[in-house]
Amino acid sequence: MGIQAKRSNFSAWYLEVVRKGGFVDQRSPVKGFDVILPWGYSVWEMLQKKLDEEIKKNGVKNCYFPILVPERLLKKEEDHFSGFTAETAMVTEVGDTKLEEKLALRPTSEAMMYSLFSLWIRSHADLPFKVNQWNNVVRWDTKMSKPLIRSREFLWQEGHTAHANKEDALKQIDEAVDFYSKSYDQMALSSLVLVRPKSDTFPGADFSVVFDSVVQDGKVVQGPDAHMLGQNFSKPFDVSFTDKNSKKQYVWQTSWGMSTRQIGAVIMHHGDDKGAVLPPEIAPYQVVIVPIIFKGKEKIVKEKAAELEQLLKKKGIRVYLDTRDYSAGFKFNEWELKGVPLRIEIGPKDIQNKQVTLVERLSSEKTAVKIAKLDVKKALKRIQSEMINKSKAALKKSIKNVKEKAELSPIKGFARANWCGSDECEAQIKETGAEIRGTLYKKKEKPFGRCINCGKPARHVVYIANAY
Amino acid sequence: MGIQAKRSNFSAWYLEVVRKGGFVDQRSPVKGFDVILPWGYSVWEMLQKKLDEEIKKNGVKNCYFPILVPERLLKKEEDHFSGFTAETAMVTEVGDTKLEEKLALRPTSEAMMYSLFSLWIRSHADLPFKVNQWNNVVRWDTKMSKPLIRSREFLWQEGHTAHANKEDALKQIDEAVDFYSKSYDQMALSSLVLVRPKSDTFPGADFSVVFDSVVQDGKVVQGPDAHMLGQNFSKPFDVSFTDKNSKKQYVWQTSWGMSTRQIGAVIMHHGDDKGAVLPPEIAPYQVVIVPIIFKGKEKIVKEKAAELEQLLKKKGIRVYLDTRDYSAGFKFNEWELKGVPLRIEIGPKDIQNKQVTLVERLSSEKTAVKIAKLDVKKALKRIQSEMINKSKAALKKSIKNVKEKAELSPIKGFARANWCGSDECEAQIKETGAEIRGTLYKKKEKPFGRCINCGKPARHVVYIANAY
Repeated sequence: MGIQAKRSNFSAWYLEVVRKGGFVDQRSPVKGFDVILPWGYSVWEMLQKKLDEEIKKNGVKNCYFPILVPERLLKKEEDHFSGFTAETAMVTEVGDTKLEEKLALRPTSEAMMYSLFSLWIRSHADLPFKVNQWNNVVRWDTKMSKPLIRSREFLWQEGHTAHANKEDALKQIDEAVDFYSKSYDQMALSSLVLVRPKSDTFPGADFSVVFDSVVQDGKVVQGPDAHMLGQNFSKPFDVSFTDKNSKKQYVWQTSWGMSTRQIGAVIMHHGDDKGAVLPPEIAPYQVVIVPIIFKGKEKIVKEKAAELEQLLKKKGIRVYLDTRDYSAGFKFNEWELKGVPLRIEIGPKDIQNKQVTLVERLSSEKTAVKIAKLDVKKALKRIQSEMINKSKAALKKSIKNVKEKAELSPIKGFARANWCGSDECEAQIKETGAEIRGTLYKKKEKPFGRCINCGKPARHVVYIANAY
Repeated sequence: MGIQAKRSNFSAWYLEVVRKGGFVDQRSPVKGFDVILPWGYSVWEMLQKKLDEEIKKNGVKNCYFPILVPERLLKKEEDHFSGFTAETAMVTEVGDTKLEEKLALRPTSEAMMYSLFSLWIRSHADLPFKVNQWNNVVRWDTKMSKPLIRSREFLWQEGHTAHANKEDALKQIDEAVDFYSKSYDQMALSSLVLVRPKSDTFPGADFSVVFDSVVQDGKVVQGPDAHMLGQNFSKPFDVSFTDKNSKKQYVWQTSWGMSTRQIGAVIMHHGDDKGAVLPPEIAPYQVVIVPIIFKGKEKIVKEKAAELEQLLKKKGIRVYLDTRDYSAGFKFNEWELKGVPLRIEIGPKDIQNKQVTLVERLSSEKTAVKIAKLDVKKALKRIQSEMINKSKAALKKSIKNVKEKAELSPIKGFARANWCGSDECEAQIKETGAEIRGTLYKKKEKPFGRCINCGKPARHVVYIANAY
């Protein structure tokens, strides 16, 4: 157990952590379609539970729409179709029978859902209309796959709302940003919330708001996004309603999603040379208890360890008592690799002194604590907030004001730069390898110089980075 | 609101209940792929929550495997492949590019999972190995589709386990039957737990254990099943381990699943001419409060109704206060159609008398109850157990001993009959329209006559029914 690669070889390190840590197995028989292993899936369940609660509190209802979307539906919104078509997997036959029409595996569900919204939404009294589904989607990315971060099938939730006017739809975007901010607190991930440039907007949307976080190789990982769809879909799909004056109006729409990619972002952001470091709020086990067995003392050690396990369980802590037939050292390595926040060692000497040995994953600090004074909940809370603070500081440190294009290659973290707003300059910036990720959402920044590419007057302060 | 069809026209009645009750919309653009609407999906969430807990308590871990399965993998177990191939949807292209190999949308995941089990399972210390996934599967049934009961895509969980020996695998089958029995209690559904005849065994299994329930038109709806796979998959997929004597052994396997079909079974079993009747344990709302508004009394009625809502919420009851701008009568009809177990009406007169009017969905009984004496939890518990008892009695009543084949057409409920065990007799029985559903699981019954078809000595007591 344990990993060989160091973070200095980030890609090799990441692949080792996800596989040996039990997050993902990439050896599935279809390239780019990975297996999410139990430990990784549990992290997803932690994220799901909280986000699902938030979504429901917002009045959004869960439902389920078919995975197969007729090609003609996808084609109804042209930008949307042309944005997805190259990476869409098509079902063309069943058994040995050819189908009359190709059916796409959903890359996302706008087209499928809105074809039904048009049947359901009739009057202003039906609005806002808000649904969400937890499902799988397939996008046949042709780039090199990376488990969780770039895979051809992933799990996510997709929320879809319809509103009577633009203001209500814009407010929903804020609310989506708000749920995802709570997920980011759970993950102890700091991010910039950016409005993407037009070139990188969701196909068919007016604008897209996206969470971007920096990971330890200096690249950026895109997280959840929320799209202002305006009336771009409601017109071709005829999603309309009769307003209070009995006039036909088209609805204003939003869609927003968060995926299993987050598990990868958490590993890449918080990990160290020993493996993953999971924030307590999403760690499947928050504490592992490792009994330190000495000959002749087995019984008392096992008893005390089991007592402690029960004590912690009663307090609602996710704890695992590791009584497997392996050496203590092997267990230490394994749980460190998996990223469990706290390890409690308990051996004959500890018992004699009415104490345990507490080892923190984040700091590697090892302390003896009297059992009477053990407050695991408090320790977990402290670790969560230390991880949040550490992430905030790292994000802040990663942003550098940049005035010369030469400084962009190579770039780590975010370059904060001025941009004239032209497509040409955007494209030329992209030639450096880095790309414009967007402008801050809801925070207009004043340019502090001229366009980093053409030197003409700048219209926007943008954040530039290399991204996964 | 309200439905037109009566249960005497069962199929029309069912279609109206699922659509108008907000369970399913069949108008999706792909035939046989239905939308599960929020009310129907919430019932599924109730079933999921409980079953997921039971599965985890059993030591099974959740994970996620790819939806696409290469055709060559499906072919590894011949019976399995030939059982599924005609109804398997195939992805053959991505964008405009033909794939080199056809990829099947999983009709079930044995082949995909076991190709990985063979990499993971090495030693007896790795056993038992137990995983589960909650996902969607596609089976292109060519029969007429019926929402929830027979649809081409459905949601389910599929549990898969590997064991060191046959006994352990058989024990796992019992444990699966045990979780599903708990789900059946939640649904207040009585069933026969049957071992299917060979002709209807899961493709590739040694035997299949299945829950069969009778619904109100006298037909049977199949529920969850558990399959003893023996070593039929472990040999072709090379899922093997080194035993304690360092000898290579093949694992013994089981798989078991429960699907969204249950929502349909619940509606068909418990419904009445007003619509669905949901058991309290799976009702998304257990109680609706309908304020009865009279002019000049709006404020006090709304206040008291809101107080009551808070009171019930604090007790952990799933309650909805219906303040929508519709008539009370409209609301009554709608919630009856959706199957909410209890309605509480509160109007000015009730307030004066410190009471509410309680209306039970199951019995239609209407009683005035003093607020001080209102015990909603107790009422819900009683209704749940009344529904269980009613279902038990209906099942018992539906089973009739039958000695003559002529009595099989038409048949409602189960015919309990004697069978010699031959394939020919089974096929000839099927010509009546009814079919042998199996023998009781774990309860050997002694034949009480000769084979119902050929008149030769009988080997089994079987249950014969018409099934969906």
